[in-house]
Amino acid sequence: MEAVGFIGLGSMGEPMAAKVLKAGHTLTVYNRTADKARDLVEQGAKLVQSAELAATAGGIVITMVANDRALEDVTLGPGGFGERLGRGGLHLSMATVSPDLSRRLAAWHAERGSHYVAAPVFGRPPAAAAGKLWIMYSGASAAKQRAKPLLNAMGQGVFDFGEDPGAANIVKISGNFLMSCVIESLAEAFTVGEKNGIDRQAMSDMFTQTIFACPLYQSYSPLVAAGPGDKVAFSMHLGLKDVKLMLETAEQAGVPIPFGSVVHDRIVSAIARGRGDKDWIAMSLNVSEDAGLEPKKSSA
Amino acid sequence: MEAVGFIGLGSMGEPMAAKVLKAGHTLTVYNRTADKARDLVEQGAKLVQSAELAATAGGIVITMVANDRALEDVTLGPGGFGERLGRGGLHLSMATVSPDLSRRLAAWHAERGSHYVAAPVFGRPPAAAAGKLWIMYSGASAAKQRAKPLLNAMGQGVFDFGEDPGAANIVKISGNFLMSCVIESLAEAFTVGEKNGIDRQAMSDMFTQTIFACPLYQSYSPLVAAGPGDKVAFSMHLGLKDVKLMLETAEQAGVPIPFGSVVHDRIVSAIARGRGDKDWIAMSLNVSEDAGLEPKKSSA
Amino acid sequence: MEAVGFIGLGSMGEPMAAKVLKAGHTLTVYNRTADKARDLVEQGAKLVQSAELAATAGGIVITMVANDRALEDVTLGPGGFGERLGRGGLHLSMATVSPDLSRRLAAWHAERGSHYVAAPVFGRPPAAAAGKLWIMYSGASAAKQRAKPLLNAMGQGVFDFGEDPGAANIVKISGNFLMSCVIESLAEAFTVGEKNGIDRQAMSDMFTQTIFACPLYQSYSPLVAAGPGDKVAFSMHLGLKDVKLMLETAEQAGVPIPFGSVVHDRIVSAIARGRGDKDWIAMSLNVSEDAGLEPKKSSA
Amino acid sequence: MEAVGFIGLGSMGEPMAAKVLKAGHTLTVYNRTADKARDLVEQGAKLVQSAELAATAGGIVITMVANDRALEDVTLGPGGFGERLGRGGLHLSMATVSPDLSRRLAAWHAERGSHYVAAPVFGRPPAAAAGKLWIMYSGASAAKQRAKPLLNAMGQGVFDFGEDPGAANIVKISGNFLMSCVIESLAEAFTVGEKNGIDRQAMSDMFTQTIFACPLYQSYSPLVAAGPGDKVAFSMHLGLKDVKLMLETAEQAGVPIPFGSVVHDRIVSAIARGRGDKDWIAMSLNVSEDAGLEPKKSSA
Repeated sequence: MEAVGFIGLGSMGEPMAAKVLKAGHTLTVYNRTADKARDLVEQGAKLVQSAELAATAGGIVITMVANDRALEDVTLGPGGFGERLGRGGLHLSMATVSPDLSRRLAAWHAERGSHYVAAPVFGRPPAAAAGKLWIMYSGASAAKQRAKPLLNAMGQGVFDFGEDPGAANIVKISGNFLMSCVIESLAEAFTVGEKNGIDRQAMSDMFTQTIFACPLYQSYSPLVAAGPGDKVAFSMHLGLKDVKLMLETAEQAGVPIPFGSVVHDRIVSAIARGRGDKDWIAMSLNVSEDAGLEPKKSSA
Repeated sequence: MEAVGFIGLGSMGEPMAAKVLKAGHTLTVYNRTADKARDLVEQGAKLVQSAELAATAGGIVITMVANDRALEDVTLGPGGFGERLGRGGLHLSMATVSPDLSRRLAAWHAERGSHYVAAPVFGRPPAAAAGKLWIMYSGASAAKQRAKPLLNAMGQGVFDFGEDPGAANIVKISGNFLMSCVIESLAEAFTVGEKNGIDRQAMSDMFTQTIFACPLYQSYSPLVAAGPGDKVAFSMHLGLKDVKLMLETAEQAGVPIPFGSVVHDRIVSAIARGRGDKDWIAMSLNVSEDAGLEPKKSSA
Repeated sequence: MEAVGFIGLGSMGEPMAAKVLKAGHTLTVYNRTADKARDLVEQGAKLVQSAELAATAGGIVITMVANDRALEDVTLGPGGFGERLGRGGLHLSMATVSPDLSRRLAAWHAERGSHYVAAPVFGRPPAAAAGKLWIMYSGASAAKQRAKPLLNAMGQGVFDFGEDPGAANIVKISGNFLMSCVIESLAEAFTVGEKNGIDRQAMSDMFTQTIFACPLYQSYSPLVAAGPGDKVAFSMHLGLKDVKLMLETAEQAGVPIPFGSVVHDRIVSAIARGRGDKDWIAMSLNVSEDAGLEPKKSSA
Repeated sequence: MEAVGFIGLGSMGEPMAAKVLKAGHTLTVYNRTADKARDLVEQGAKLVQSAELAATAGGIVITMVANDRALEDVTLGPGGFGERLGRGGLHLSMATVSPDLSRRLAAWHAERGSHYVAAPVFGRPPAAAAGKLWIMYSGASAAKQRAKPLLNAMGQGVFDFGEDPGAANIVKISGNFLMSCVIESLAEAFTVGEKNGIDRQAMSDMFTQTIFACPLYQSYSPLVAAGPGDKVAFSMHLGLKDVKLMLETAEQAGVPIPFGSVVHDRIVSAIARGRGDKDWIAMSLNVSEDAGLEPKKSSA
């Protein structure tokens, strides 16, 4: 069993940390707003007042924070855990961040004898609570091996993308990019149908029972057909963050991705029209508006 | 049991006709090149020398031909079956054609007391042979009801899209459009991965086992990862035909579909580069070339 | 001096015909609505009641009609002038039509010993009235030579694009395509400026006095800056016709033109939002709306 | 007459500095590679060994450096001139940099009682040598008034874009964006023509003598028609820098600019294909390659 620090107890991090605890590891947790830690503390976790204190020398720290800046802060900033983790320590970085940052942090840790493994996830909070996340990881082999039991506690499948610490991040942001393409393509198809008098939901039903009978389509397609409701599983602002990560990664690699630009423009326009706090499914509304349709009252 | 004429015995039509025969109907078949009918004749079908002779007054004619022009020819042209089908007859139109043509033919039949049902399909030849096609249909209710047992003989599921005879065609070309978007989006993601040293097939494996664990992705994704081989399941020229149908339908409906334009341009470029007879998966090669990669020898 | 028939007396055709008359030629005119011919008749033209009667055997017929269909009708349709023009006749086709139609008509004329020259123009009605059009032409050399004096009467410059009768049409639709790109690019730039608090007209003033000090920008840029008024010099519907000609010509030639697709989508969206009868400058309003700006009252 | 420091003696900065000197001002120059200053020193300029020494308290410093980073370095970095310029000093920033940096530097100067005016330019080295640049500027009124005589010495026209120090930069990068759109649109049109057997240069000649008879088109269009030669007036890498500035500015302002994305992708692809050091006109080669044409030997 490991001594594990867990930093970042958001809607994903909290249930993930619970799984680590349940697997029998010693758990120290830190979150900017401490009340998120209550349940975990009741279950036996120790709550600390800084990222730094979440680390034990040579132990493991898992980070599940909002973005690149937050990850840099909790690792390298004042009160960060990086130096304290020290020789033999393992930083398991599970949030969606840029491959560049993963590579920089891996190099930073290497200079200190600590290790960095990127291990971002697919799945929403209920999947995290059930330990059913899909996890991709990359980094040095020995470090990955040490991380494996923890990842198995949180996910139903772990996929290895080699030694480059940025690789797992690229696969993750590629996956999010593919999801955004699903939204846009469905929105285009349903809108063509709608303006021909065809029921959007009927189209959705057929596609998700036949050629696209998979979790992602079955979750997204009915929402694209109905228009986004009030529930926000993944906000437009997060969508913008992710498509920017993809566009920057593609640009650096010298790859034009025109679908990426289309999706980017949808999201920028959605935010410009006041939908930044809506679920990113709402980019489908722009497709409707471009076609001269009034977006539905409940969703605009 | 019905007296059924079947026109168009290509790689899809032949096994579909066999299912009709097996279901106990009387089958008369016509194909431009008669030798495609051999097996069916052995199984009891009657081969005739013109589209016209495939029809019996008040019977059913199923058409599974290459495109709009071929459908117009066998129906309305010299030697066409339309007039002979006559009052009470049913034209079951199962190829991928434009909604416009379906609407025009439906009106033409209505003037003569015959009926038109559009019933295009999803699925490739093996699915046709197994009677496992997915079928969408639209047209007048009574005509659809009469068509249903035949469709059940050919498919594992039938989806009703109402009275507009063009509706089923729109759903079908929307489905093909969605597939083309899958190819493009995967090609963009894999190429970003490849230029970062990540194995395309490893990315494909993960996506098709997790968020995209559905038939379409599991069939297409490995091909986009590997590059198209010599097998041509759906040619680039057919891909162009279909994306044009989608763009024209969208334009008429007043719907901008930027993903459609991107895919269209990939296909136009692929054909301009001499890949018109390749499988449409080969549009992924253009993504690679745009990124400065040499397309693989085996596939270019 | 020639015996000239002139078919199509719209806002361009009428002043062009007047220039032919003023140059001393015998002029016979035909227009669907005859009252457009009044001024020309006063100046000495003869008005006839069909396209056919506008032709004299071996003479010249100039056509300046709305689109491909109208050109086919007045040439080949019932009451068309084609057969009557006969051996040695010259059809000078000055409207914006497809290269395909020019090629077909040229072949049709060739079979009858008559000739076809495509000679579309740049310029608006005031330029036509001043004999200041820019004209591009293509076709057989002898026929072009015969057409030259007439073109000189209507234009300030004539540009030769060789023997292919479709070539001049391609240059013309390319020019219109370039103009549409000017509208879109200026709209994007001005909107970025506007949302940063910069006056659109101030940007326009600078560009049109410096790097873009040419007629087209000086005419279009202030309109893109101000938003289109009530004047309609070139309607959105005509814009759609022209960008479709360009996209079809490009597709046939195997050339992806992504700018063409962007402009096409702007126009489709503008029409879908009820702006089909506005000047095509109004495609700039979509750029503004995509950026969350309310289009100006006066123009929406 | 002013005491003027000039930092950045590249192909633009050197002739601009010469104009300042010729106008009678005292000139102190700094460049990373000092030999660029030889001619200026012969004409009476004083050469110094650091950016800092180019400034005199309360004087004027003109910067004409490569990019944002270089501007930050010479102003704020170790050996930078910012602190030395001091109260009453004027920083005249003439390079193409981001509006964000202009705003930050203006605020930084304001805290110290110095002033910042952004004054980027249109024009190439010969125009700089002739004092014929076009200059846009923005910043506080009094500071602009002081800058005016210097700008008049370097340019043939000065355009005022108000108080926001970032405004002039936005107009400048918008202008470069418009130029890139000219390249792309011409390349698309010429390639459609070429594949129809029309001479690219003939198309170019017509357009630049008629609707696009303005300096920018007359300079760029023949190059797009011919393909880029060996001369590099503006490299692809600089093109990428500028289109990124435009895309970032647009994104921050909430404006989708699809033309910007198309141009961006052309440039990324050109660099990926090994053309990063070519003139940015070479983005036209990608248009040709997409159409299945071999890029010309001399230019690929």
